[in-house]
Amino acid sequence: MQGKFITIEGCEGVGKSTQLALLKEYFENNGIDAIFTREPGGTDVAEKIRSIILDANNKALTPVTELLLYAAARRQHTEEKIIKALSEGKVVVCDRYADSTVAYQGYARNLDKQLIGELNRIAMADVNIDLTLFLDLPPELGFARKGGADKNDRLENEKLDFHKRVYEGYLAVAENNKDRVVRIDSSKDVDGVFAQIVDAMKKAGVV
Amino acid sequence: MQGKFITIEGCEGVGKSTQLALLKEYFENNGIDAIFTREPGGTDVAEKIRSIILDANNKALTPVTELLLYAAARRQHTEEKIIKALSEGKVVVCDRYADSTVAYQGYARNLDKQLIGELNRIAMADVNIDLTLFLDLPPELGFARKGGADKNDRLENEKLDFHKRVYEGYLAVAENNKDRVVRIDSSKDVDGVFAQIVDAMKKAGVV
Repeated sequence: MQGKFITIEGCEGVGKSTQLALLKEYFENNGIDAIFTREPGGTDVAEKIRSIILDANNKALTPVTELLLYAAARRQHTEEKIIKALSEGKVVVCDRYADSTVAYQGYARNLDKQLIGELNRIAMADVNIDLTLFLDLPPELGFARKGGADKNDRLENEKLDFHKRVYEGYLAVAENNKDRVVRIDSSKDVDGVFAQIVDAMKKAGVV
Repeated sequence: MQGKFITIEGCEGVGKSTQLALLKEYFENNGIDAIFTREPGGTDVAEKIRSIILDANNKALTPVTELLLYAAARRQHTEEKIIKALSEGKVVVCDRYADSTVAYQGYARNLDKQLIGELNRIAMADVNIDLTLFLDLPPELGFARKGGADKNDRLENEKLDFHKRVYEGYLAVAENNKDRVVRIDSSKDVDGVFAQIVDAMKKAGVV
């Protein structure tokens, strides 16, 4: 019996945490055996790798070394936790996964997209994502929700620009993977968004 | 001005340390600006990555995660130290490099050779190895030098078998990279081996 692998992706502030909490409740209410995990991290070894990436003392760390470390952490998480749970027939819900690397490192930081594709392929250990829920909300609206970016604040505006590139990345991922990625209109209210998620899961046959 | 990159490879006990000491003396006597480095490790960040690989507590670490971590450490070492020194016109001598991964992980541990090739290519950051000195001595002779493996000791014999596969790997690397890898007959005495090394460096135009 093979489980189902669902990833949740989207820009900051699109409401992932709220939807993940509803999803957890949904699986419990419907007696579906599911585990929730997140990247980067997810296992002890992956967390140790992550700590090298995040250690502020490692100023010399180069962008490609960082990519390789993210790939190492993802591979460990995938082999040790995700594939194991899938083989036990569980639904695995992962908050951010390979598409985040494409959007953040590939589009926003402009690292080589072919290299990212190559490393994601190695990191994923042949695991198949059954459904990616892309919580689609342009970053301008995300900022608007929390009162808007301060136009006089250089950092806030740089940040907006960064998040716009992340968003572009997600749009490209969605466009290039129509069989797996479902765009969830996240401008709706909480229940309206969750209804789309349940609908997408049913259509994809994961519940 | 571009420096020259020399790697030294070979099985355990072939006399690398002795030859490296002679090489250091040779460069000093001839006023050649050279740095000596080694893998795995070579920089602070690379050492930190290495410590995750070597930490006995990380029993869950999978073989491919380990490969990715070696690649991350190599990339960091290459970008931060090797390429920098080469761009300053120095000769860089590295004790073990990409070919070690092919011989040890690819041949002796039988991991996917295409994957290793892919990761070595990423890890090497387009650096060019000008000359690889392969200290060629079959492991049987290496064992013989130190009194021979105990035939009644299962571990010693397993080890010999492992080192035979490493040796096979090096022979394949030498065969597939004739333009760069020079086989140094390491059954000769110390001076006889070093004479071949100087000869190989002169023919390759690195000194």
